[in-house]
Amino acid sequence: MPDERVTALPGTAEIEAAAARIKPYVVETPLLAAPSLGAPRNATILVKAECLQRTGSFKFRGALNALLALDPGTRARGVVAFSSGNHAQGVAAAAQLLGMKATIVMPADAPAIKISNTRGYGAEIVFYDRATGDREAIARRIAGGSGGTVIPPFDDPLVIAGQATVGLELARQAAAMGHKLDAVVVPCSGGGLVGGIALALAAASPATEIFAAEPEGFDDMRRSLASGARVANPPGGCSICDSLLAATPGALPFAIARRYLAGSLVVNDREVRRAMAASFAELKLVIEPGGAAGLAAILAGKLALDGKTVATVASGGNVDRESFVAALAEGTG
Amino acid sequence: MPDERVTALPGTAEIEAAAARIKPYVVETPLLAAPSLGAPRNATILVKAECLQRTGSFKFRGALNALLALDPGTRARGVVAFSSGNHAQGVAAAAQLLGMKATIVMPADAPAIKISNTRGYGAEIVFYDRATGDREAIARRIAGGSGGTVIPPFDDPLVIAGQATVGLELARQAAAMGHKLDAVVVPCSGGGLVGGIALALAAASPATEIFAAEPEGFDDMRRSLASGARVANPPGGCSICDSLLAATPGALPFAIARRYLAGSLVVNDREVRRAMAASFAELKLVIEPGGAAGLAAILAGKLALDGKTVATVASGGNVDRESFVAALAEGTG
Repeated sequence: MPDERVTALPGTAEIEAAAARIKPYVVETPLLAAPSLGAPRNATILVKAECLQRTGSFKFRGALNALLALDPGTRARGVVAFSSGNHAQGVAAAAQLLGMKATIVMPADAPAIKISNTRGYGAEIVFYDRATGDREAIARRIAGGSGGTVIPPFDDPLVIAGQATVGLELARQAAAMGHKLDAVVVPCSGGGLVGGIALALAAASPATEIFAAEPEGFDDMRRSLASGARVANPPGGCSICDSLLAATPGALPFAIARRYLAGSLVVNDREVRRAMAASFAELKLVIEPGGAAGLAAILAGKLALDGKTVATVASGGNVDRESFVAALAEGTG
Repeated sequence: MPDERVTALPGTAEIEAAAARIKPYVVETPLLAAPSLGAPRNATILVKAECLQRTGSFKFRGALNALLALDPGTRARGVVAFSSGNHAQGVAAAAQLLGMKATIVMPADAPAIKISNTRGYGAEIVFYDRATGDREAIARRIAGGSGGTVIPPFDDPLVIAGQATVGLELARQAAAMGHKLDAVVVPCSGGGLVGGIALALAAASPATEIFAAEPEGFDDMRRSLASGARVANPPGGCSICDSLLAATPGALPFAIARRYLAGSLVVNDREVRRAMAASFAELKLVIEPGGAAGLAAILAGKLALDGKTVATVASGGNVDRESFVAALAEGTG
């Protein structure tokens, strides 16, 4: 896949503007220390509990930033989004907050909790088949009919600037706690969150190394960074990280990643379940599989920890009861 | 049981001093909105996520405040505490932080996670039989031998002032979010937390009604308030709320409660499990049974909610996997 020209990387001004714009509506999620996880590894491990964000994931930030930037006339024509779940909830909740109509294109096999929550925020849902449908094309067709605005899940400067506010808060909170961040590990699907955080920290904490964390079989960011161009995941992959299954990094996130990422760390389902169980026991946070990929990479020793201070983002908490119970059983068993 | 004369209620100055003293060490836990729980009840429900506190419960605040107030010579002789678990962890972790030796008297049937965590903070544990032993007498005997200081779980002005800092934060956070608190519902065992919060809010938010929440069979605060003197729970009671099984309200907490509490709300195990399941699904917080008693009272409609803004404290998150899975199964089934 050829690399598109990317001219619109959000800068510090855009990220600060996003932070100011969304501040009245978002939770400043806490940065929690996990001494019982860090001590055995001679490391300081910090977890940004973004699963406590409205809608249960960071996606609310980017969606809200994008919608708040629309003028009233455009807002009146509604919003359309395509998403496996968390972006769907983020857009639906942000639209509800602003009194906008939202139509969300979701895979038919999305977790039940994400479907029912999206509906709960008042959105209309259009299902597609993950194996055969083109969700983006469906969304653009709907928007073409209604005049609505499509809010992409990651390939958008306003969405990335919204997600970048996680990085701004993280840098400020770590400094307030007296920590110097050696590395930050961020769950990665299309790359909007890790890209945004990389941009924010490039300004706020330039010595910090930023890593993506991806599920085995969906390490398109790692392979794209290795090859120097965006590559897609091979078909047939399978992972419990339902929120990290994008086929390829976004063009804009990849342009950021090439410049600012130290690498991408790959985790398997078992490592993810262990991280979910550790979060339950030590942090008292419910993290969904995809949201635990960064913590999984840290706990499984995928990067050097000795004497280091390493942060991760628990990026979402929207997990069905059955999946969570299975993670606790395997992760602590 | 006759009411002791209580002369040492912590005032605003003592609570502010506690807040300043413990601030460098404690997590300012977030106050989270739960719109999906509040909307169906036409109420605004706020949850102070104190399960994210160091050691997984609010008890760290009071223990740390009491230990920080000791002079160096006293600190050197160590600390002794008796506790079913959360106070044990709070004292052990605070002692470890200050380089003090801690000896904790715990019931042999305390949850495994609380025992292993207490040990993990470097404390020595002495077990007793909940049915036949007198934990306070055992603790005082140990302290008599070592010259150590006994930190009681609730009947102590410094401990109560520490717990009161939850109320200070809650009042400030609610105001910052634009909320006027009609009521706050607080899990209650000996009454240190609800007493402390009542004192803090009497100054910071005097129109707010404060309620205790207690498990069925352990409603000693409710019956004590009704009779005007401290009464004990009848023997043979059984509740999943292991952290709320104190036999009677503390003297100091009861003196506060008589003056400042609007009442005590009683919840059963099923209501507690439902609250734990609701917290999992909607708040992404792991709450232990006792920590969910306040949320349980709210969700089960034990107080008037219509049009109101009601907060609760999720006071702890130290729950074994099996108990949590059982709560999810019953609470969402």
